[in-house]
Amino acid sequence: MKASIIAIGTELLIGQTIDTNSAYLGEQLTGIGIDVIERYTIKDQKEDILRTLTQATEKSDWVLITGGLGPTKDDITKETIGVFLGEKMIFNNDVKASLTAFYKSKGYSFLPIHEQQCYFPESTMILTNELGTAPGMLFNYKKTKIISMPGVPYEMKHIFKQSVYPLLVESSDEHIEQVTLRTSGMGESKIATLLEELNIAMENDIELAYLPEIGGVKLRLTAKHSNATIAKEQLNQTRAEIESILKPYIYGINTQSLSESLGNILDAKGLMMGTAESCTGGKVASLITEKAGASSFYSGSIIAYTNAMKVAHLGVQKETLDKFGAVSEQTVTEMLNGLLEKLPCDVGIAISGIAGPGGGTPEKPVGTVWIACGNEKETITKQLNLKKNRILNIQYTCFSALNLLRKFVLSH
Amino acid sequence: MKASIIAIGTELLIGQTIDTNSAYLGEQLTGIGIDVIERYTIKDQKEDILRTLTQATEKSDWVLITGGLGPTKDDITKETIGVFLGEKMIFNNDVKASLTAFYKSKGYSFLPIHEQQCYFPESTMILTNELGTAPGMLFNYKKTKIISMPGVPYEMKHIFKQSVYPLLVESSDEHIEQVTLRTSGMGESKIATLLEELNIAMENDIELAYLPEIGGVKLRLTAKHSNATIAKEQLNQTRAEIESILKPYIYGINTQSLSESLGNILDAKGLMMGTAESCTGGKVASLITEKAGASSFYSGSIIAYTNAMKVAHLGVQKETLDKFGAVSEQTVTEMLNGLLEKLPCDVGIAISGIAGPGGGTPEKPVGTVWIACGNEKETITKQLNLKKNRILNIQYTCFSALNLLRKFVLSH
Repeated sequence: MKASIIAIGTELLIGQTIDTNSAYLGEQLTGIGIDVIERYTIKDQKEDILRTLTQATEKSDWVLITGGLGPTKDDITKETIGVFLGEKMIFNNDVKASLTAFYKSKGYSFLPIHEQQCYFPESTMILTNELGTAPGMLFNYKKTKIISMPGVPYEMKHIFKQSVYPLLVESSDEHIEQVTLRTSGMGESKIATLLEELNIAMENDIELAYLPEIGGVKLRLTAKHSNATIAKEQLNQTRAEIESILKPYIYGINTQSLSESLGNILDAKGLMMGTAESCTGGKVASLITEKAGASSFYSGSIIAYTNAMKVAHLGVQKETLDKFGAVSEQTVTEMLNGLLEKLPCDVGIAISGIAGPGGGTPEKPVGTVWIACGNEKETITKQLNLKKNRILNIQYTCFSALNLLRKFVLSH
Repeated sequence: MKASIIAIGTELLIGQTIDTNSAYLGEQLTGIGIDVIERYTIKDQKEDILRTLTQATEKSDWVLITGGLGPTKDDITKETIGVFLGEKMIFNNDVKASLTAFYKSKGYSFLPIHEQQCYFPESTMILTNELGTAPGMLFNYKKTKIISMPGVPYEMKHIFKQSVYPLLVESSDEHIEQVTLRTSGMGESKIATLLEELNIAMENDIELAYLPEIGGVKLRLTAKHSNATIAKEQLNQTRAEIESILKPYIYGINTQSLSESLGNILDAKGLMMGTAESCTGGKVASLITEKAGASSFYSGSIIAYTNAMKVAHLGVQKETLDKFGAVSEQTVTEMLNGLLEKLPCDVGIAISGIAGPGGGTPEKPVGTVWIACGNEKETITKQLNLKKNRILNIQYTCFSALNLLRKFVLSH
């Protein structure tokens, strides 16, 4: 099966918004064996939308459109699909009811100006959107299904997961089984060479995809078979083979993040953790608390962005800062000790570094980071020498610190 | 003048790589008045490249291609452009000389396998690439100029800035002036209605785009005119009109984020801020420290994820927690007072809430959040009743808290 993606919005063309929706859809569709053959990014203009719809529906079984569904005049996707299908717009009372409820929940009323949001091309199948005012839409056009979703990423993903993904899976004549192994510590080409040498995944015709991310590589295994049981068996066999080889590098399965994985280990051991962050400025804490339930293993953090806070709240010695600097093994060790002493926690992470772009010196260039982690009895430290930009340096440091603590806790 | 962008690469379609190149090119082209009318994202396949080149050259004065220029078998852009132009490939000795020098600088030799990289369609004008092995290329096709650049972002940007941008500026006949006003506190349709009623932007033929984001709406104003001064005057006039109406809602201009805007105000007033976070778990701190230079106005944060930490590190009374709960006006007020007392800061934010999905009660459902902000003399508090998912509740809370402090500091 083939799919085309159409992203509508002038903000995408003029570069004000980076199109992450299309990458998300591409990954999802590819994951269930649908061939994404092309993507169009076009303006909110009638002729452009009509021409692109004609082209895309000729080539694809599925056409997924994002964007151009807002309540303002420049959003014309809905009307234009109506023109494309040769259908008139009709008022949808169900949508009016949910919109009224939606606005009410926000403390607003349904106003005459909102009426326009309730008109849809006659044959529209509504895909409910609990997170926003514009629902998704499904249309049948010749042999092609056209899906239209809002451009706001979280609304689009919500509608996609809830309404579109099940339809796509259903329409596929093959059974697809997938698992993603999340690894850290071995590069993409090294893993690929290793698995190729061992002929892993070959006998079962398992598709292997390498998806690099900051600090690691995700390995996606896909089994396709007309028989669901066989697909599952083949996947499990290959998965077991790969796990036996890469075990020390695998930190999580499917969507399990590194901080979730660490949380599970801490929960199992009944340990509490705390963090002391400088250059990462709360990013580690934020990653840990992204998923619900962190309070069972996470006490909290001291974000000591200034030296004064390192001294006052983590008990770092002024002499240590003067002699070795804020970015040093000595300082992060004292930060960790202070953390373990002052916070109700059994293990902890302390981080200090130069994220950039300023603040570097010849001895300690931008990207120099020190991490300490451990418990009251034992401390391990690690130095990073990163060469990326500020945001990536922070992300990589967080990943590295969480992985260091994960390994520490596993081995203690 | 019109431009089309063609991004070539299967990795873009399957979502393995997010296409940031096209956004960069879109921004650059728009900035000098070139109308980016469309973008195609296609596979490294001959027929797709040929068909897209035909379509794009019919519509645009400039066609900018990125990707598909690597040394591997699946990179066929160069050969396919040759086919499109009906030209044979000829060996370029200058390119061989620079490639030899490039490899030498990396400690490698020019090998027979590299010969293929020196063949180009006959009419190619080479655009030098000092940062990689594949140079950019310029072709004249009928009235259209075709530019081909490598997909590696820093190589593409280097070639674009050095060789392409000057050509584009030289050839432009329309001037474009743009500004984006970032607002919070008024919905998209409300702003639209207000501005439409007042006929704002109409007389100057200014293009208005509404770009919603978490917690606010961005308003993009675009003026186009053959005369640069007139375009600028028209933009400024409309901007002033809109600012006079929406002033209380505008927190930033163009790419300026809310935390940057707050930082500038604090810097100007010589104030330091601190944060005490519970349900946002470090996200506010992380947003503030995302941009370099925050240490001039930001001391740090106490992330008190557990009640024990609220008591020990922020001096919240046990009785307050017992009587009113962790998510209450009383608790956030004590958190703020503790923060202002214990941290080296003049103003602060304290947050406690139920981000979800668990933890809600009939009296305090998921999405209930209390925020306090202020200085030693005055505290303001705000309750939020959010209805989104955990991640969005956290994001919205951060935005709301930063905006509350921004307004507090502005009025004190």
